[in-house]
Parts: sequence; C-alpha cells; structure tokens
Amino acid sequence: MTTVALIEYADATGDVLTVYDEIRHARKSDFINNFWKALANNPEQLRRTWDQLKIVMGPGSIDPLTKEMIYIAVSVANSCSYCIHSHTVAARAKGMSTDQHSELLAVIGMASHTNGLVTAMQVATDTEFMVE
Amino acid sequence: MTTVALIEYADATGDVLTVYDEIRHARKSDFINNFWKALANNPEQLRRTWDQLKIVMGPGSIDPLTKEMIYIAVSVANSCSYCIHSHTVAARAKGMSTDQHSELLAVIGMASHTNGLVTAMQVATDTEFMVE
Amino acid sequence: MTTVALIEYADATGDVLTVYDEIRHARKSDFINNFWKALANNPEQLRRTWDQLKIVMGPGSIDPLTKEMIYIAVSVANSCSYCIHSHTVAARAKGMSTDQHSELLAVIGMASHTNGLVTAMQVATDTEFMVE
Amino acid sequence: MTTVALIEYADATGDVLTVYDEIRHARKSDFINNFWKALANNPEQLRRTWDQLKIVMGPGSIDPLTKEMIYIAVSVANSCSYCIHSHTVAARAKGMSTDQHSELLAVIGMASHTNGLVTAMQVATDTEFMVE
Amino acid sequence: MTTVALIEYADATGDVLTVYDEIRHARKSDFINNFWKALANNPEQLRRTWDQLKIVMGPGSIDPLTKEMIYIAVSVANSCSYCIHSHTVAARAKGMSTDQHSELLAVIGMASHTNGLVTAMQVATDTEFMVE
Amino acid sequence: MTTVALIEYADATGDVLTVYDEIRHARKSDFINNFWKALANNPEQLRRTWDQLKIVMGPGSIDPLTKEMIYIAVSVANSCSYCIHSHTVAARAKGMSTDQHSELLAVIGMASHTNGLVTAMQVATDTEFMVE
Repeated sequence: MTTVALIEYADATGDVLTVYDEIRHARKSDFINNFWKALANNPEQLRRTWDQLKIVMGPGSIDPLTKEMIYIAVSVANSCSYCIHSHTVAARAKGMSTDQHSELLAVIGMASHTNGLVTAMQVATDTEFMVE
Repeated sequence: MTTVALIEYADATGDVLTVYDEIRHARKSDFINNFWKALANNPEQLRRTWDQLKIVMGPGSIDPLTKEMIYIAVSVANSCSYCIHSHTVAARAKGMSTDQHSELLAVIGMASHTNGLVTAMQVATDTEFMVE
Repeated sequence: MTTVALIEYADATGDVLTVYDEIRHARKSDFINNFWKALANNPEQLRRTWDQLKIVMGPGSIDPLTKEMIYIAVSVANSCSYCIHSHTVAARAKGMSTDQHSELLAVIGMASHTNGLVTAMQVATDTEFMVE
Repeated sequence: MTTVALIEYADATGDVLTVYDEIRHARKSDFINNFWKALANNPEQLRRTWDQLKIVMGPGSIDPLTKEMIYIAVSVANSCSYCIHSHTVAARAKGMSTDQHSELLAVIGMASHTNGLVTAMQVATDTEFMVE
Repeated sequence: MTTVALIEYADATGDVLTVYDEIRHARKSDFINNFWKALANNPEQLRRTWDQLKIVMGPGSIDPLTKEMIYIAVSVANSCSYCIHSHTVAARAKGMSTDQHSELLAVIGMASHTNGLVTAMQVATDTEFMVE
Repeated sequence: MTTVALIEYADATGDVLTVYDEIRHARKSDFINNFWKALANNPEQLRRTWDQLKIVMGPGSIDPLTKEMIYIAVSVANSCSYCIHSHTVAARAKGMSTDQHSELLAVIGMASHTNGLVTAMQVATDTEFMVE
C-alpha cells in the first residue's frame, strides 16, 4: 500500500493537471500510472521528474528500447518491483521481443553472478583497465 | 587485495590452461584479467563461468554492445567496482561512443532516482501492468 | 507470508511477555506489531533488539523524528517494505509533516541518483575529503 | 580510477564553466570536487544535476544538516564510498557534531540490522500500518 | 505477478519436459515450483541453471544444509522475497531446526548491522587482513 | 580513508580500554583491528556491539565456522569490502579449507544469479511455500 495519497486526474489542478495532460499527450493514452499520482503530492518534484525522464529516456545515441532494458536491469538490482513491472510493460510496448526479454534476463543473471564472485574474491582491478 | 591466490598463465595446467587458451584465442590477446586468475582456484567453476559467459554475452537478439551496457548497469547497482571497470573497457572495445556512455550514465542515474522514489512511496503496481 | 510463527500477546510468557509489556507501556498502546511477534521466537534476541532500539532511537543529539527519517532512508535503500511502512507511520506519529515527507522523498531520490552516477563513473575521492 | 575524463576548471568552457562558477560562488570556495569534473563530460546533465541538487538540498521544511545526514544514510546503504566521504565532510561543514555523527552511525547500524531481520522473516505488514 | 508466462508441466515439451522430469525425480515429488516454470521460457537457460544448481548445491566440502543457509543469507541481503521463502522451506526440509533458524537470523542481523557501521565509517582494511 | 578517528590501544581509557582488553583476551592476541578502533569513538556502542557479537557468533546450534561463512555471504551482498576481508581471515582461522572457500564462492555466485532472475521475472511465491 502506497505511503502517500494518490492524486487522481479528476482531482488534479494547476501544475499537476498540466503535467498529467503532458503525460497523456506524450503517451497518446488517458492512463496515468500510480507513480505519477503518488509523486503529484509534490508538484515541483512531479514537474522535475517528468521533464528529466522525457529527456533521458528519449531518442539519442542509445535507442529508447535499449534504454528501457537498461532501466529494467537497474530496477532488478535495486529490487524495485513496481519499476520492473512498469518498465517491462514499457519495453514490450517499444518492441522488446520474447527472445530479447530472455536474453536480457540471462545477462542480468550472469552479471549478478559474476558481481557476487568478484566481490567475494575482492578481485583487484587490473592496471590494463585503468585506461582513463 | 584479492582474498584468493591469482593463478598466473605460467602456472596454469590442465583444465585451467585450456580455458586460459580459449580466453586468449577468443579475445585475440595474451591478456588474462584478474577475474579469471582468481576464479581458476576452482577449475570447474572457471570452466562453467567461461562457457556460460560466452553464450550469454555472445550475439543473439540483443547485440553484444547493448549486453555490455546492461552488464554495467547491473554492476553499478550492485556496487561492483571491478566489474564496472572491466565492462566499461569491454563496452568501449565493442564501440561504445562517449555520447552513448553519457546516455548510459544518465539512464542509470534516472533509474536509481525513481527506484528510490517508488520504493519510498511503496507505490502499488497498477493493474494495467499485470499483463501476463 | 512470514517465515516464522507469530507469537501473540495472549500466548506470550516469561521474558517475551515482559518485553511485550514494556513495548505497550512505552508506546501507551496495546498494539504489538508483527516485527516483535516474529522476533519473539528468540526471546533473547527480542530482548536485545528492544533494549538497543530504545537507546538508539531515543532522544539524544539527534531528535527522534530525524532519526525516524534516517531509518526510512536506510530502509528504502535496502528495499525493506515492512520497515518503510512501519517507520513512515512512526515518523508521522512523531510529527513529520506532509512537506517534510515530500522533502525526505526528494533527498532519497537525489541521493540514489548521484550514488548511481558516482558509482558508474567510479569517481576517485578528492584528497580534500580525506580530512581525518 | 574514474571511468571518464575529469574536466578541470582551466579547461572548462561554455555551460560547464558557467556551472563551475555557480558552484564556486555558492560554496564561497574555488574548490570543484571530482564528481562535478566527471559529470561535466555531459554539460546538460551537469546543469540538470546541479540545479536539482541546489533545490533539493537547500533550506525547506527539513534543515540542510538533516538532509546531509539522510544523504549519508542512503549512500551507506548503497555502498557509495565517494558519496559517504563527500557528504560526511559536507555535514561537518554544516555543523554536525561528533555526537551527532555517532548517533547517525548508530541509527544506520540499527536500521540495517532490523531491515535484515524483517526481510529474513518476511514479516507481513500490519494492517494498522496501512493508513493511507 | 510474474512478468513472463509460466510453463506448466502439462504443456512442457522437449528439453523443458526433460528438465522437469529430472527435477521431479531428484526431489521425489511431482511439484515443480514457479521459478522453473518461469525460467522454462528459455529452455537453454533452464537446462544451464538446473545443471549448475545441482552441482553447486549438492554434497561437497560444505554440507547441503549449510549451503541452503548461505543461500538464504544472500537472498535476504538482495531482498529476494521468493528466494527467501523457497530456500527457507528447502533448509527446513534438509533439517534446519528452529534454533538454527533463529541463529541464522541473528547472524544475518548482526552482519547487516556491522556492514552498515563499517561502510558508514569507511574503515580502512587492516594490513593484517591482507594475507594473500 | 576512515571518516572517524581511530582510537589506538595506547590512547584507550575507561570502558574502551576494558573492551579492548576483552577483545585481546578472547582472541589471545594483542591485535585490535580498525573496526573496533573506529567504533570506540562511541564507547557505549563499542560495548553493545562487542557484547552482541560475542553472543551471536559464539557456539550454538550453528557452529562458529558456518556462522563466519554466513557473515561473508551477507557482507558480499552488501558490498562491504572491509567485512569480506576480515571475516574471510576469521573463517580461515576457524578452519575454512580452500575447498570450502571455493564452494562458498560458488553458492554466493549461484544465489546472486537466481536472485537476479527471480526478481527480474517477479516470480510469484508458490502457495506450497506458504507453510507457516
């Protein structure tokens, strides 16, 4: 259960309503998901987060689908259940195939595995990796 | 400092030597990084990890560079310093541009940010995301 | 579902009953929350944890409300859903306003964000920060 | 070793120089720490992060010192060594006493402890905590 | 809700059916738990994971019950609710007593506690610990 | 670099000296490691932590070596480098063989791997695991 109230679209006013309308417009859908409804308790933070997310997740030198898969990877390692659900849905909406999802899972599993091994063995970074 | 001994190439024998040679051949380089030298204390685990990593990180429906970026994302969230260094080097070797690195960092930062917000607010998963 | 049995007040005896009564007295309420009921399977650990928590979370050079907000911050980063719920309720009971909750969330989000960036870039600690 | 180049003040131009000057002005010091020098590889992200950090960490309903302590708490749980160093220095600069630091450590330790216990026991959230 | 489809035994074919039968045989039970049903979307990964898990969790120089307790410890620190439930059940099936479970919880709590303290204080590793 | 001063044995007085002497006596060694020297800034917390650690890590229904391996597992998942070093040394002092260390690493790696897969797939807990 969410620890803050959810601001529904019908109750939104001012800056919150403006952001909600931008979300609806950008997604071509009336659906506003709970993350935004929760964040709307702080209208300035809602505005900052939405603006920033649009920039960061939009087209660039990494394509939007790849960005969603990276987002899922971080969310898994941070155990954010909501984030995994919402970004898995987003990744599928952007074209992630079942095969790609399987490979994403395999990479996440393997990275978690070797992260654990490396940390347990406290492997010293090779000087060859100090390239900067 | 590594908590296990490092097995150098010159000291490798049997299965360890075989895997070391496969690593050298696959990478077209004599360099064996510390992770493998540490893992070589358990030859069976060295073999399993190398075999699996080749399969998981090889070409498929997700390209190898994208896989490296996903690996970095997991390693950051798991705070694995060695892994971040080694896979950043690997990603660059596979063509990651400075712009792509910047965008990768931005996505990781943004995902960490909203993971924190969502978890702090304990946002309930929208039924719309329950698509399976 | 809890992986251990919950010891209800009506079933408590000996040391468990004594701690339960101390909790009721300290909180001026009959309510014993599930954490204590689960911990009561190990009466000595129940005693140690309650005694320690009273000392650590009590008044000192940091006020109790601030301590609750710090507790929430740690619990979020550790993804402890129960802990986030229980300490958010505790923080409100100690006077956390809606504005303070919003700012707490913003700090947690921002810290998570820059933690991710710093770790991804493996920023070396400035010698200026080595003040001890 | 940082995985990106550090942009020194002497080499900063355009937007990066402007942000650097704002940092110097705000802190009344010529010192620019490595985090900003690393982030400066992406001038837009430097600008967004600095602007946001000023807003989030500035005065509000939670005082700036408390915000620094919350920042430290998150950074500890996320194992961000650089962040712990830099924000401990910042907290001291804002007046954190040795006693307050000790109590902060005690709260972080205790929260980590009960987070572990609660998660291991998978304690179900009391309905009494479902107050929203 | 699982983000991938669950492949039921009745619908399993080819390699998936073979692994399912191996699981049933090894456990002397018809029950296939959801983890395998989810992983079965990628038959090769199902095969690799099952084969590896049998080797790693089987008898060796550490007994199977101890391995289950170590598995629980990692799963708690990674906040994997499913894994905590399934491996707690497995540990009990392998003979974990109520006292052992209590002590396991106490060690996990204590380790989490001192991990937090050490990280917050950024304690430098004693040269005496650099034994390799 | 540690963020608090280290209290050396020669400078210890009162309760700190008493605990230091207990540590030396219990370990039959003059060596006091940095963790205790850092914690000594808060004598009461030093006392509480030492007393608790003795109880939790001492003999019981789980043997001391197994407890050290569980401690290492938690410390790896929490990325506590100091803790991994110190408890690996402690485990060896209590008899951990090279084979046991290898198997411990394999279990940690495998648990991290499946934790990642389960979390990424958000596998629902089987009702069969709801045994309490």
